[in-house]
Order: sequence, then structure tokens, then C-alpha cells
Amino acid sequence: MAEETTAAQPVLRKDDNTIYVGKKPSMGYVLAALTQFTNGATEIAVKARGKLTSKAIDVVQILKNRYMNDVAIKEVKIGTEELTGEDGRVSRVSIIEIYLKK
Amino acid sequence: MAEETTAAQPVLRKDDNTIYVGKKPSMGYVLAALTQFTNGATEIAVKARGKLTSKAIDVVQILKNRYMNDVAIKEVKIGTEELTGEDGRVSRVSIIEIYLKK
Repeated sequence: MAEETTAAQPVLRKDDNTIYVGKKPSMGYVLAALTQFTNGATEIAVKARGKLTSKAIDVVQILKNRYMNDVAIKEVKIGTEELTGEDGRVSRVSIIEIYLKK
Repeated sequence: MAEETTAAQPVLRKDDNTIYVGKKPSMGYVLAALTQFTNGATEIAVKARGKLTSKAIDVVQILKNRYMNDVAIKEVKIGTEELTGEDGRVSRVSIIEIYLKK
């Protein structure tokens, strides 16, 4: 089954408090996370794929170091996701999921 | 105090079973990890800085998916390291440390 290809877009799913880190500047994702916590979330997840995984780490570190010292990293998961292209070919991409708790 | 700047080099410290992921092709680091395990290590750490953190995740995933299905990810730590340049200026860089267990 084809995976969603949301990684390149800054998607903020309000239902599950997940921030998908994409190609926009890091600060947008930092502020999205800050907004989630300010609006009452106690746990959020920051997720990214491929080369963007390093940006997800940056986003979390900027959030923690500059804006919210009381946020703790609950868990960091890494893994592989299989993406099926339109031609049916399967490619693998690394993913990261960083779970934060206030 | 100035940090070591080993991130750009493929350094394999035999004393502590740590592999520093640098700018060389991923496969070299995968094989370094495989060698460590083959030589009797039961735990190794894969570490990287900055944009190379995404490559560290790739290295671990390639190792696990293609070569060593029996390796488990024990823990993933992310953080920030302060680097002091020759001019005394301090810059911050994100880091990842992935601990693997056989």
C-alpha cells in the first residue's frame, strides 16, 4: 500500500499532536510545537523522514534549549519506512519519531 | 573547552566500541559496525553530529535490515553539543547517539 507523502509539508495534525517536519525553515516547526504545548497538549511527537531527520532533531533541540526548558524527551524511535512509487517500485527511507512530554 | 572535531572522520575507537559517522559513504560505517560485532562486541554506539545525524540513522537501518537482523536498538539519545571555534565563538550542533545491542 502506498504510504502518505506528507513529509515535505508542514502538517500539524491536531488530533494526535504530531508535527511532521518538512522542507520549510526549522523555526516554523519549533513554533508549531510551542503552539501545541501552549494550547494544552502534554505530549507531542515530532516526526521526519530521510535527510529531514536531522532537522527534526534540530527542531526539538531549539524548542528545548531556547523556548521550553521544561519539556523532556520521552522517547526517540528510529526505523525504516517503505514507500511505493507510482511505478510500483519500493524504496526505503529512514524515519525518526521524537516524543516530547511537558 | 573545545570539543573534539572527529565527526567528519570515520573514527573507530576500539576501546569503547563507538563509531563516529562522518562524510564518507554510509557503507563504510555499516561495515565498521558489522566488524565490531563480528569481533565479539555485544554493544556498540553509532554517533553523529549536525546533518550527519540522518546518515547515522541510515547506517543503523542498513545494518539491521540487510546484515544483522538480530541487532536491537537499545536506546537513541539526541542532544546538543557546544563547539568552540578558534575565534572563541560558540556554536551549537545537534547530535545523535544510537546504542545497539546484539
